Amino acid sequence: MTEQKTLRLGIAGLGNVGVGLVKLVQQQDKLRLPGNLEISLVSARSRSRNRGVDLSGYGWEDDAAQLAKSDKIDVFVELMGGSDGPARHSVETAIRAGKHVVTANKALMAEHGAHLALLAEEHGVHLLFDAAVAGGVPIVRAVRDSFSGVDIHRVSGILNGTCNYILTQMLETGADYKSVLKEAQQLGYAESDPYLDVSGMDAAHKALILAVLAFGAKPDFSKVRVAGVDQIESLDIKLANKMGYRIRLVAEAVQDENGVRCHVAPALFKVDHPLAQVTGPTNAVMVEGEPVGRVTMTGPGAGEGPTASAVMGDISRILQGAVTAPFGLPVSQLEDKLYLSSGDGPRSVWFIRIRLSDKSGAMASLSNALAKCDVSIDLMQQDSSAGGDGSPIAIMTHPCARNVVESAAAIVAELEACVDKPRVLRVEA
Amino acid sequence: MTEQKTLRLGIAGLGNVGVGLVKLVQQQDKLRLPGNLEISLVSARSRSRNRGVDLSGYGWEDDAAQLAKSDKIDVFVELMGGSDGPARHSVETAIRAGKHVVTANKALMAEHGAHLALLAEEHGVHLLFDAAVAGGVPIVRAVRDSFSGVDIHRVSGILNGTCNYILTQMLETGADYKSVLKEAQQLGYAESDPYLDVSGMDAAHKALILAVLAFGAKPDFSKVRVAGVDQIESLDIKLANKMGYRIRLVAEAVQDENGVRCHVAPALFKVDHPLAQVTGPTNAVMVEGEPVGRVTMTGPGAGEGPTASAVMGDISRILQGAVTAPFGLPVSQLEDKLYLSSGDGPRSVWFIRIRLSDKSGAMASLSNALAKCDVSIDLMQQDSSAGGDGSPIAIMTHPCARNVVESAAAIVAELEACVDKPRVLRVEA
Repeated sequence: MTEQKTLRLGIAGLGNVGVGLVKLVQQQDKLRLPGNLEISLVSARSRSRNRGVDLSGYGWEDDAAQLAKSDKIDVFVELMGGSDGPARHSVETAIRAGKHVVTANKALMAEHGAHLALLAEEHGVHLLFDAAVAGGVPIVRAVRDSFSGVDIHRVSGILNGTCNYILTQMLETGADYKSVLKEAQQLGYAESDPYLDVSGMDAAHKALILAVLAFGAKPDFSKVRVAGVDQIESLDIKLANKMGYRIRLVAEAVQDENGVRCHVAPALFKVDHPLAQVTGPTNAVMVEGEPVGRVTMTGPGAGEGPTASAVMGDISRILQGAVTAPFGLPVSQLEDKLYLSSGDGPRSVWFIRIRLSDKSGAMASLSNALAKCDVSIDLMQQDSSAGGDGSPIAIMTHPCARNVVESAAAIVAELEACVDKPRVLRVEA
Repeated sequence: MTEQKTLRLGIAGLGNVGVGLVKLVQQQDKLRLPGNLEISLVSARSRSRNRGVDLSGYGWEDDAAQLAKSDKIDVFVELMGGSDGPARHSVETAIRAGKHVVTANKALMAEHGAHLALLAEEHGVHLLFDAAVAGGVPIVRAVRDSFSGVDIHRVSGILNGTCNYILTQMLETGADYKSVLKEAQQLGYAESDPYLDVSGMDAAHKALILAVLAFGAKPDFSKVRVAGVDQIESLDIKLANKMGYRIRLVAEAVQDENGVRCHVAPALFKVDHPLAQVTGPTNAVMVEGEPVGRVTMTGPGAGEGPTASAVMGDISRILQGAVTAPFGLPVSQLEDKLYLSSGDGPRSVWFIRIRLSDKSGAMASLSNALAKCDVSIDLMQQDSSAGGDGSPIAIMTHPCARNVVESAAAIVAELEACVDKPRVLRVEA
C-alpha cells in the first residue's frame, strides 16, 4: 500500500486550466498526492504561444486524438472544452485505448455522459469530472461517494459564477445588464462569447450532471428547462430588493413522485437565505436528503487555480487505484426518470414585474386580468422613482402553479395599459 | 466493474448513530451504494433495551472485541466512543484480524490515530473516519482526497454544534451560560456530561484530525491549545454584539514557517463573516489554500442521521475497493510539525472585557496598566445597562501578540479597581 505509483499524464488543452495544472504538477512536492506524476505529452492549438510556464520537458502532439492513444501516457486530461469535435473524439479515443480520463468539460459530460461512462465501464478505466461542476468545490465526489448512503431529495445551487457576478453587480451599482456584462468580460469573469453562461446553458449542463449523480437518473439534456440572466433588467433586481429579495440564477434538480425535474432559472430568494448571501463569482451547492439534512458547499466556481486543483483531486483518485463507475451507479442501472414538468406541478409564490401606462383604469384592468386567471395578489409594490415608460409595479402572488401564472402573464401582456412583456420569476420558499 | 460486491457488517454500539446506521442498511434499496450490505453481528451494552428498530435478524455479541474478529464480518463499525477502553481494544482487534474499520470516534483517532493508521497500513485494511469530524459534512474525504492537490494554508471552522448552539442562544435570549446549557441538555443538543463539548476538547480532537489530513502532520494531541465556551458570560456576548461581532468557538489549524499551529478557542467574528452567520448546532469548515482559494462546507455536525450517513459514505468507499492510507499519506511520511506557539507569534486584534469598580481613578489606572504593557486601545465600549458589580467595559486593541495582551490582562487583574478576571478573546481578521 505504501509503494509509490507513478502516472504519466497527457494534457490536451493549455488554456488557463491546463497551465494551472502544469504548474501544480511541477510543484507536486508541496502537495499530498498518494504517488508521483509526470507530464509526458501536451497538446494545444498553438505551439508557439507563450504561456508563462516551461513546457520544454514535455513531448508535443498537434493532434489531441494522437496524444490520447499514445503509449507514453496513462491518463488523458481533456481541457479543450466543447461538447463535440476534438474533445469528444479524443476522450473516446483515450478510453478505447485503455487510458484513464480526467475532464473539466461539463458540456461533454452533460450531452454525452451516458455514452462515455458506458465506454469507460466497458474498458475498465476511470472517467472523472469533478472539475466540471462548481470548479474548486468538490461536489461531484461528495454527491457520488460521500452521499451514496443518502436518499437525496434536492440538489440546488448557484453553478455559474459569471451570472452571479452580473446579478450582484447590477444590484450594487444599479447599472444595466449590458454594461455589467461588458465589465465582467474586461475583468475575465465572462467569456468574449458569453452565450453559454448568460443563457443558463452552462449551469444547466452542471445541473444535469448533479441530477445523474444524485438520483441515478439517465442523462437527457432535452429534459432540462433552461432560462438565463440575459432577460433580467436592473428594474427587476431593484424591485425585488425593495421587497427583501435577491435574484439568483438557481440550478436545481428535485425528485418527486413523477421522477426528477431539473431546471435553471432566475428566482427570488429572501435576503437571509444562504443562496442570497452568495455574491460575486462564487458558486454554492446545497444537498438536501435523508438522513443527512442539508449540507452546503461554497467556493470558487471557475478559474485557473480552482479548476486545476479539482483536476488534481481526480488524478489523485486514479493514483489510489480502484476503478469505479463514472456516475457512481453503472450506466445500466441509471433510470429514465428525468421529466419536463408541464407547469401544473408544485404551487409556488411568483414575482411579476409589469410596466403599466399611466392611463386611468390601468390598474383596474391589471387587477381584473389577474383575478380572471385565479392569480391572487399577496403584495404589490410600485417604483415611482423609475424613469422611462410606464410605472413599474412588482407583485408577489399567493401560491399557484406555473402554468396558471404564465397564462395570466400572457393575458396581462395583451392589455392596452401594459407597456412591455411582464417578467415572471419564481420566489423560493 | 459492475459485479455487485456484498459486505458483511459488524456494528459495535447501538446508540443514536448505531440505530441510524441499522435503519439505513435496512432501506439500502433507496440508496446509491456500489454494492450490497448485510448486518451480521451487533453489540451494545444492553441487549434488552428497546431501540425502535428490528434487530432480530442479526447475531448478538456481548463483547465488542469478539465481534471485531468474528469470521462472520468483513467490516467492523465502531460506534461506542471513548479514546481508550473497549473502543480502542476492539478497533485494534479488528485490524489485526484483517477487518476493515469504520469509526465515528474523534477522541480515538485524535489520541491514537497514528498508531491505528500504521496498524491498518500494515494489515492492508481500510480505517475510515469521515463521521468523526463535522458529522454529515464530508470534510475528511474532501481534505484527504479532493484537496490532495492543494497546498493548504489553513483549515478553520465551527466543529462543535453544542457550543455553537449555546453561544447562539445566549445572544438571542440574553440568558446565562448555565441556563442555556441546561436547556441544550433537555433538547438533546448537549450530553448529560457536557465536559468534552463545552471544554473545547471535542472540537480539539476534530481540529487535530483535520491538521493531520491537511498538512501531513504527525498527530500529537498535547500540541493542541484548547479553550472552551464554559468561561463565556452573556455580558461578553452582549458587548461583542454591540461592537458588531459574534463570539464563536473556532477550531483552527494553520501552517506557518515554524510548522503547524492547532488550537480551539472562542473568538470574535464580524457579523458578516461566514462563520458568524453559522447559528445553532450547525458545523462549518473553511479550507484555504493554493490554488483553490477558499472552500466552505456547512451542515449538521452531529446527530443520528447526519453521522450515520457519514458512516455509510465510508462503507461505500470500502465497497469501491482500493485500500488507501487512512490519513492520505502513509504514517511514515507524516511529519513532526505540530507546535504550541509561545504566544509571540502573529499579531492580532484582541477583545478585552473588564469589570471596573466605580471608584474614581479606576479608568485611569486601567489605561495606565495597558499603556505600560504596550497594549494600545483602538475602541472602547461601556455597558451602562448591565447590573451586578462594576461597570463592564469592552476594549478592542490595536494588533499585538498574544503574550503581550495576556500579560497586560494579568496586570489589569491585579488592579484594585478590577472586579474580576478580565476576559481576553482573539478578534478574527
